[in-house]
Amino acid sequence: MFVSTMATPADTSGLQKLADSGKIKPDTLVALVGKTEGTGQHDDWGRVWADVALREWTAKFLGIPVAEVAQRVIFVLSGGCPGVITPHIAAVTREMVDVAHPSDAKRLVVGRAGSEPMAPEEVGRMGQIQKVADATHRAMEDAGLANPRDVHLVMVKVPGLTVASIRDAESRGETVVSHDLTFGPEGAGSYANDAAALGVALALGEVQRSSLSDQVVRRNWDLYSEVAMTSSGGEKRHGEVVVFGNAAGAQGELQIGHAVTKDFIDADGVRSALRSAGLKFNGGLPEAEDLAQRLVHVFAKSVIPGSDQVRGNRITLLDDVDAYQIGKALGGMLIASVTGRTTNYVSGGERNSHQGPPGGNIVAAVVRA
Amino acid sequence: MFVSTMATPADTSGLQKLADSGKIKPDTLVALVGKTEGTGQHDDWGRVWADVALREWTAKFLGIPVAEVAQRVIFVLSGGCPGVITPHIAAVTREMVDVAHPSDAKRLVVGRAGSEPMAPEEVGRMGQIQKVADATHRAMEDAGLANPRDVHLVMVKVPGLTVASIRDAESRGETVVSHDLTFGPEGAGSYANDAAALGVALALGEVQRSSLSDQVVRRNWDLYSEVAMTSSGGEKRHGEVVVFGNAAGAQGELQIGHAVTKDFIDADGVRSALRSAGLKFNGGLPEAEDLAQRLVHVFAKSVIPGSDQVRGNRITLLDDVDAYQIGKALGGMLIASVTGRTTNYVSGGERNSHQGPPGGNIVAAVVRA
Amino acid sequence: MFVSTMATPADTSGLQKLADSGKIKPDTLVALVGKTEGTGQHDDWGRVWADVALREWTAKFLGIPVAEVAQRVIFVLSGGCPGVITPHIAAVTREMVDVAHPSDAKRLVVGRAGSEPMAPEEVGRMGQIQKVADATHRAMEDAGLANPRDVHLVMVKVPGLTVASIRDAESRGETVVSHDLTFGPEGAGSYANDAAALGVALALGEVQRSSLSDQVVRRNWDLYSEVAMTSSGGEKRHGEVVVFGNAAGAQGELQIGHAVTKDFIDADGVRSALRSAGLKFNGGLPEAEDLAQRLVHVFAKSVIPGSDQVRGNRITLLDDVDAYQIGKALGGMLIASVTGRTTNYVSGGERNSHQGPPGGNIVAAVVRA
Amino acid sequence: MFVSTMATPADTSGLQKLADSGKIKPDTLVALVGKTEGTGQHDDWGRVWADVALREWTAKFLGIPVAEVAQRVIFVLSGGCPGVITPHIAAVTREMVDVAHPSDAKRLVVGRAGSEPMAPEEVGRMGQIQKVADATHRAMEDAGLANPRDVHLVMVKVPGLTVASIRDAESRGETVVSHDLTFGPEGAGSYANDAAALGVALALGEVQRSSLSDQVVRRNWDLYSEVAMTSSGGEKRHGEVVVFGNAAGAQGELQIGHAVTKDFIDADGVRSALRSAGLKFNGGLPEAEDLAQRLVHVFAKSVIPGSDQVRGNRITLLDDVDAYQIGKALGGMLIASVTGRTTNYVSGGERNSHQGPPGGNIVAAVVRA
Repeated sequence: MFVSTMATPADTSGLQKLADSGKIKPDTLVALVGKTEGTGQHDDWGRVWADVALREWTAKFLGIPVAEVAQRVIFVLSGGCPGVITPHIAAVTREMVDVAHPSDAKRLVVGRAGSEPMAPEEVGRMGQIQKVADATHRAMEDAGLANPRDVHLVMVKVPGLTVASIRDAESRGETVVSHDLTFGPEGAGSYANDAAALGVALALGEVQRSSLSDQVVRRNWDLYSEVAMTSSGGEKRHGEVVVFGNAAGAQGELQIGHAVTKDFIDADGVRSALRSAGLKFNGGLPEAEDLAQRLVHVFAKSVIPGSDQVRGNRITLLDDVDAYQIGKALGGMLIASVTGRTTNYVSGGERNSHQGPPGGNIVAAVVRA
Repeated sequence: MFVSTMATPADTSGLQKLADSGKIKPDTLVALVGKTEGTGQHDDWGRVWADVALREWTAKFLGIPVAEVAQRVIFVLSGGCPGVITPHIAAVTREMVDVAHPSDAKRLVVGRAGSEPMAPEEVGRMGQIQKVADATHRAMEDAGLANPRDVHLVMVKVPGLTVASIRDAESRGETVVSHDLTFGPEGAGSYANDAAALGVALALGEVQRSSLSDQVVRRNWDLYSEVAMTSSGGEKRHGEVVVFGNAAGAQGELQIGHAVTKDFIDADGVRSALRSAGLKFNGGLPEAEDLAQRLVHVFAKSVIPGSDQVRGNRITLLDDVDAYQIGKALGGMLIASVTGRTTNYVSGGERNSHQGPPGGNIVAAVVRA
Repeated sequence: MFVSTMATPADTSGLQKLADSGKIKPDTLVALVGKTEGTGQHDDWGRVWADVALREWTAKFLGIPVAEVAQRVIFVLSGGCPGVITPHIAAVTREMVDVAHPSDAKRLVVGRAGSEPMAPEEVGRMGQIQKVADATHRAMEDAGLANPRDVHLVMVKVPGLTVASIRDAESRGETVVSHDLTFGPEGAGSYANDAAALGVALALGEVQRSSLSDQVVRRNWDLYSEVAMTSSGGEKRHGEVVVFGNAAGAQGELQIGHAVTKDFIDADGVRSALRSAGLKFNGGLPEAEDLAQRLVHVFAKSVIPGSDQVRGNRITLLDDVDAYQIGKALGGMLIASVTGRTTNYVSGGERNSHQGPPGGNIVAAVVRA
Repeated sequence: MFVSTMATPADTSGLQKLADSGKIKPDTLVALVGKTEGTGQHDDWGRVWADVALREWTAKFLGIPVAEVAQRVIFVLSGGCPGVITPHIAAVTREMVDVAHPSDAKRLVVGRAGSEPMAPEEVGRMGQIQKVADATHRAMEDAGLANPRDVHLVMVKVPGLTVASIRDAESRGETVVSHDLTFGPEGAGSYANDAAALGVALALGEVQRSSLSDQVVRRNWDLYSEVAMTSSGGEKRHGEVVVFGNAAGAQGELQIGHAVTKDFIDADGVRSALRSAGLKFNGGLPEAEDLAQRLVHVFAKSVIPGSDQVRGNRITLLDDVDAYQIGKALGGMLIASVTGRTTNYVSGGERNSHQGPPGGNIVAAVVRA
């Protein structure tokens, strides 16, 4: 996993440098996961442009047509870098090697899978949940992970809704989950993200099939995943899943861990994630050197709590017209204040989610063993 | 010092409870310092309404006309509670007591002073700087503080500009520092705040009189105060200064300290402020019990850095249309993630300031000895 | 009907002047209808403050306790004056007179009624629809209007939802129509406004009882009223209805008319409303003198079209994060560009509505006969 | 002049269709002028992406490298389509023809010129003014226009400031006009736009050289142009000028005219511009057929008035945090409500400008003769 900063939405120079140095190769690149600058809203042209530019670069790098890139490399681009989140791209690679004497220590592995196409009428509903669950199973197989406990992060990108796709669905007599195109509490973007999270939870056994239905999405917050980070965009037609976990026998020097925060200001939860991944420190904080040398990357959600109370005191965030941006920015600060760096992957801003427990958020960390 | 949360901008029930219990009395109340909910922008009606409601309450409590309240109690209301900042009001009281055998330990004292009226044409310029400096000297005397090193926090509220006051100045042939009424980089609100900060710095000897002129305001960032927290509002005609420090011989169980953060994500700087005030802890974090029992209140600025780099990586905050709100919200998170509570006084959001060193911010803490 | 501008949300000086001059009297004042400055969003403290200040003033004016004001005078305050909408208040009065020889010409009459209290679980649903319909009937009786065709404007203010009222409903095992507190497409504010509009449509026979159900609210746009202007706020517990129409035998010099625009840029629709009220002009525009002398006031909605097309061309308004503010501002401009003044009542900003036909908006005008 | 709508920022299909049909040819295309969707703010990635995509398309169309496009075709892309402004691009072409018997009627001609490169320290100051004036003269010559009275529109795009370009200037010991990167009242974007406008005014004799200095920019509003529409973007290093006017002897069926509005709600001013261009109508409105058949395109500015009064009544626009977007949207509505279409070029949103008289705005129209 290699992290490059980006100077503009279309900046591929960091990737090119990794390619030139041989760190990433056409046959080892499996995913590009990043934060892109822009509004982070429904019509975030920064993210769309980055998506176009990165796909063009990848097509050239792999020597294939742009249209085939999606079958080889999975893109998870989360739009919006408010506050202290540096626009960046993490290139995820893997290499198949024959090993005579595999070590016992578990090391980072990654697997990926695309889902079946999702129709607009499936967005935010059981259709999307089931297709994400199926894809998650296939991505785990692809990674060589059999035990859900070894899975520490599942990134999913699914289709959202657009004015055009709603029109399409309704012209066929179908309904859609919401006419709100935002990531607001009843927005299509939020429904899509949350159906994807429940799909992961279903695949990993975090929730039972019998407890799921169209009706529980964004209603029953007791159903959630502790490792699903999902996002959605109108321009996609199928889902993409990338699973990260630790497997015995895997080569490489990286390992991954995760934890959840208990509420919106819980810096301890961030520290727990670093410990889960393998950093050791007492009571207080990791050594600056450990952070600088061993911490490779942090992936975090920053979902806004559904309650207007944090530790017994009222906050006004739910009433705030800028809540989406501010919620994402706050997550960026919580992580950066612990890791001492701004190149963290922090996505979110929506209110309430099946990604993580009520009020809390998911944090995953990758460290050098 | 007593901290009450507020349920609406006009909620005085917490103050009333303090009054009913005898904790604050008409002749001990010297200042009300708080965060009010609302937009935090130029036309923040939440703040204006809070100001009106609190003055009416105070007038009744003191048994005087509303118009005389300003001569008895200083109001410092900072508008906007984005993110994890709970709307609250801190009542500051003091009592004059005769002491036979004063202790050696220094304890919290407070002093206050109003400034001369400031004309619109003085806003953000030497006139405002000098009048704030004069008022700061008088507030120190009022507090019984002779040594600037014993001063840990100077809160100042000064007039900003409005459409009407600009019209007034220009009708008299005067110029104003800016026609931008926002707290943007060239906004009148920022100039007013910064002239006030330089006034404090001048009074405390942090900068020399000879290095000051109209031209250095918001230009020479090497000139700054480490203890000035200033804000401005169009509705005021004179400045108000409240000085907090520790004095030998003072009675009471509180003491104050301060520190500055080195950059926008520096949680260590917040911990230093807690240590400066008297909390003891090693390397890591204060005990939860110390935070809950001994930490009375934190006052912090959250000025946005003037550079687009944090620890060598680019951030996009300077380009963000919501930067003002987000910058304030980020400060709230940095403090809350250390103190474990959301009732912190955090003001700011402007870009660059003479309040604190370039890139860093001021944090002051009051603790029980 | 008397229109006064307001210099701040709490400015009652215009009303006081009307009272001092005898134009409004304690026993003739029936409604205060106005636009208040502020965010126009869910937490619009400008509007809340105006509401408090106007009720206090009215209580003094009527010589009754504030708590009883709502039974005597109906308040319809629409928050947010983006663009070219001057904050103002229209005082609506009526006087009962005995007339020996009533004229044949129909003149403006006004009637009012409060609704039964509405529980949070009724907001945006049949409960709210039916209670508004009942109140509309009573308000028509109160005005002496028997024929729905003589009704040209029905202003309604109903309860919306708040974090607290949702909690209340859910603690009693009830569901609410939306957890989105905004005026977004699935926001509680929009559902409340639209249930109120369907209530008016039901009362006036514009829609049939049999075609109404919880499911049609914000789904079947073929159901609408051409005269309902509704708004909602979390702080209210019951609905308030004011009906305006023309009645034969009524004294006074005013008459009212209305029309609907066919789409978002239809200035002709605004002109039709002026004609409906009694201004005469050919093809082009009213005489400036007629506008200045005879036009008393205009009431208009500015609902954002649900389609991304205006006369065959795409607009991006639906994707705009500021759509709510911009939509309201655009309506203000459409009216002001025809009336040549900015003191128009323009409320709206939500997307799609049962107030007016799909894509179009309601405009009512009051003129001197 | 051919107007095509755009479905995304990078949509060049409309241009391609014009190329395929032979309406635009590599050697006749002189300018692309358009409105692009996106935030319209400093970091508008929609506009930047459109710029990149249109330059790439043009390079292919002309068969030249992208880097040489700027020497052949001038791009004026104004970002942000809030409200009722359809994203679109107008392709401006010209053809040199030998004419035996030139007609007397004046017809539309166009001329263009690039300016000398402008250093960051020149932005918003005399350097930029003079370089724009020089380029305007050359563009008039290029168009064959000798008499300033025949010039009806001068579009200018100049460099603004960026964090990087400010750093560059200051590293060389230079100062910049503003550190505010927005289009706020003291923002660098506004200074750049206004210096460009004064450059045009200087070239056309609307202001005298002797009345100009760094100090008058955004200070003395009595200095202005009635035909300059300017915009600025950080990514450019030199200015680009396109002059539109009517010349005797010119072939073609188009003619251009212009007028200014007297204030922000002056629909009459828009009608005057249509008349100036050659549409005939009495008192009222143009015939729908004339608008549909003869009106080719409208170019308008929507600068926010510097006063908080419109025709004697207060508006709150100057205090509005969204004023920039709303101001632009209001201009779009004023034009669309007269032209009955949304594909109008409307740029603006800044407060006060030397583009047009105080409070008023420039409107230019192109019609078929």
